[in-house]
Amino acid sequence: MSLLIRSSYVSQFHTRNSKPSSFSDQTPSKSPFFSSFNHNPLINLVYKRNPRMQSLSFPSSMTVKSSLIDPDGGELVELVVPDSEIELKKKEAESMPKVKLTKIDLEWVHVISEGWASPLKGFMREDEYLQSLHFNSLRLKDGSLVNMSLPIVLAIDDQTKEQIGVSKNVALVSPQGDIVGSLRSVEIYKHNKEERIARTWGTTSPALPYVEEHITPSGNWLIGGDLEVFQPVKYNDGLDHYRLSPKQLRKEFDNRKADAVFAFQLRNPVHNGHALLMNDTRKRLLEMGYKNPILLLHPLGGFTKADDVPLDVRMEQHSKVLEDGVLDPETTIVSIFPSPMHYAGPTEVQWHAKARINAGANFYIVGRDPAGMGHPTEKRDLYDPDHGKKVLSMAPGLEKLNILPFRVAAYDTVEKKMAFFDPTRAKEFLFISGTKMRTYRRTGESPPDGFMCPSGWNVLVKYYESLQESDDSSKQQQAVVSA
Amino acid sequence: MSLLIRSSYVSQFHTRNSKPSSFSDQTPSKSPFFSSFNHNPLINLVYKRNPRMQSLSFPSSMTVKSSLIDPDGGELVELVVPDSEIELKKKEAESMPKVKLTKIDLEWVHVISEGWASPLKGFMREDEYLQSLHFNSLRLKDGSLVNMSLPIVLAIDDQTKEQIGVSKNVALVSPQGDIVGSLRSVEIYKHNKEERIARTWGTTSPALPYVEEHITPSGNWLIGGDLEVFQPVKYNDGLDHYRLSPKQLRKEFDNRKADAVFAFQLRNPVHNGHALLMNDTRKRLLEMGYKNPILLLHPLGGFTKADDVPLDVRMEQHSKVLEDGVLDPETTIVSIFPSPMHYAGPTEVQWHAKARINAGANFYIVGRDPAGMGHPTEKRDLYDPDHGKKVLSMAPGLEKLNILPFRVAAYDTVEKKMAFFDPTRAKEFLFISGTKMRTYRRTGESPPDGFMCPSGWNVLVKYYESLQESDDSSKQQQAVVSA
Repeated sequence: MSLLIRSSYVSQFHTRNSKPSSFSDQTPSKSPFFSSFNHNPLINLVYKRNPRMQSLSFPSSMTVKSSLIDPDGGELVELVVPDSEIELKKKEAESMPKVKLTKIDLEWVHVISEGWASPLKGFMREDEYLQSLHFNSLRLKDGSLVNMSLPIVLAIDDQTKEQIGVSKNVALVSPQGDIVGSLRSVEIYKHNKEERIARTWGTTSPALPYVEEHITPSGNWLIGGDLEVFQPVKYNDGLDHYRLSPKQLRKEFDNRKADAVFAFQLRNPVHNGHALLMNDTRKRLLEMGYKNPILLLHPLGGFTKADDVPLDVRMEQHSKVLEDGVLDPETTIVSIFPSPMHYAGPTEVQWHAKARINAGANFYIVGRDPAGMGHPTEKRDLYDPDHGKKVLSMAPGLEKLNILPFRVAAYDTVEKKMAFFDPTRAKEFLFISGTKMRTYRRTGESPPDGFMCPSGWNVLVKYYESLQESDDSSKQQQAVVSA
Repeated sequence: MSLLIRSSYVSQFHTRNSKPSSFSDQTPSKSPFFSSFNHNPLINLVYKRNPRMQSLSFPSSMTVKSSLIDPDGGELVELVVPDSEIELKKKEAESMPKVKLTKIDLEWVHVISEGWASPLKGFMREDEYLQSLHFNSLRLKDGSLVNMSLPIVLAIDDQTKEQIGVSKNVALVSPQGDIVGSLRSVEIYKHNKEERIARTWGTTSPALPYVEEHITPSGNWLIGGDLEVFQPVKYNDGLDHYRLSPKQLRKEFDNRKADAVFAFQLRNPVHNGHALLMNDTRKRLLEMGYKNPILLLHPLGGFTKADDVPLDVRMEQHSKVLEDGVLDPETTIVSIFPSPMHYAGPTEVQWHAKARINAGANFYIVGRDPAGMGHPTEKRDLYDPDHGKKVLSMAPGLEKLNILPFRVAAYDTVEKKMAFFDPTRAKEFLFISGTKMRTYRRTGESPPDGFMCPSGWNVLVKYYESLQESDDSSKQQQAVVSA
């Protein structure tokens, strides 16, 4: 497992829709990537055209807003109570039975309240939970499906369940003790952790980060209902200005007159391989006829495992990359995706893609082994590295999203830059993993020129040094204890 | 866990389609069962009408054939090579690399070749496998979904994979050493057993019967391709005449001028509670306006776990029940469903229902905890007993099937017959499990009058005696070894 998302390059486009109609002839009807899914007569992914996108070949005086992809369910869910009602609602909530949220629960409250999970309007009731668990999708009233691959659920323990009794509504209390919202018309049902874990991760191995952190210690019941929050969720960590809601992002895309939005999900520092990929994607979208493709550089901001680089360090590194001009600030929006990380591979990548539809993205870049990690107890990847993009391309409810798979890039020691990995001259390429980056720091070396902009690298150096210090200090403490 | 399917009764009908149009007003728009799925605005199962079924209110001189539900994919898959080509095909297969089938593999060859899994035309390639595993459905060329909840796959070991090399086609060899067919345009991909088990069963517990019998000992690769079989699969066990293919069943339903077919899946002896349910279902279908509803009494004939009553005993018992007039032979077809049993609860019940669509059934009776069993290592049911019917009602691709849930029945000691379980006088009801039935035999007792027809009971007595004898003989052998 690498600390870095593999360096990468969009090798070709698979456009299922929302391509300007005047350019349809320029796109190969069968891309090399997708040919692997087409050999079987049963399978033929639907390439629906979004009629709204046809207007892109019209003059730019038309409303740009209409070019953004529709949120799932047609309307963006927003669950923050209007100012005028807050006091009343808060007072009402004070008399309701209380459900104490963990930090991760609150991240989900954030996610749901801003509509990332549209059309979901609260923590899942059992019918939604079962559909998510078994079918990775929810059926809407009109019979259509939206993607919903992760169960978005709230666990409570026996005691809380008893306190709730037959109450219809409950108040949600933050880890700090504040009432942040309520859940209405609640339904309580069994939390079969084993089944939830097995069906979500495809394993019940010990040491799955989200499971150990969040599911194992949680209660034996799930409570679903309609969510209301009393104010937008904030973290006061100096990064809140990066946390744009889907509504805010859509507005920003409109302001920039975006006619295509391509999202890049990441939880690692950005190196020049990523930049190559993202810049090349924009170039190709322009070649396809889009006038102003905007990149949504969208680091995940919720729970991550202990050995991932923390959010504040990553955000500082990303800002250096933009300052340095490696990515063009004019055509890039850096924002934080508030979801916690499951490390659930092919199941989770669907969530990552689906949530970005709700934020207005109609192109989604997917790499090798998305949301994957090493198997916690066996010497192998937990997931087949190709399954993520395959499952994404087949997933119900994601037909309207254009999936952009990318090839592995690495450091080309001859050309002295990040480039496509060319297997015929494999020896000339260098893969620089997170472990390798730490080794550079330890030995006082710098990574080769062209791997990462120097200012971005310095951010990481500082972080690795702080880790070393805390390691040293913890060793000293241990020595004191042993002495 | 009970050896018996819970005694049962259709408490109400949920008709999604294929109801004679003239009777639509008589059906409650919201059944008590389905109301549990309708409280959430996101969910509203699609009640599509099958336009072909509207013709049922027309005079009976119309082609009855058109009243049977369409097979999945529109056309019933049949993969038995025409007589004229058999010799040529067999000769060709002799020169292909060989794949040795287990008994269970051969059961799947049987299932696929007759079209129970229509539109599946062979063992799954990876794209079908992934869709089945993640979405319990396959997407067709026209964008519609068919249900496909169990991965129908063929495992091979490293050595066989090496022998196949780059060959396009392989010959399939029965456990007896006969070449029974071929798999064409094959694709070989990794068999991640842990992931397959976790996503199919929702657990990776040891002692899952199908897993222990079939998956754990199997190879690390899966081979998919287009199946051809050289002749219909037969077992020569005296029961082959019960093994009607979907095509034969459809013909039989046509012969009987069936205008509704209701399927009852079972793997246990039939008692009077089942009979009550099935007879009542027919009565209600008649009340709804169907002229000739036919019962497909459809015991599962493939692999079952060691403590289930074996197929030959069950078939003898079922035939006594029909001879005895407990079920009406005029309106009942007893046939064997050739699939092996997974005991995978909510995931498997979808397969059980889907396969019956292909055989022409448009009504499917589902009970408590279908395809469930006790957790192998914990003192609880493996699945929530209600999840089977809930998941079935939500499953993609099963919208055209009418799901008939039924309430638990038990022996009413006052009325001296099988009847609805009435919780207000719970003490007057007796649940007669398989264990209880064995105890009756051991103590020389008979079950209470009205539980099961005497001739059917006698079949079970003989079987339980044979078990006792083999227990005794094995104890004697152990004694000899110890002496």
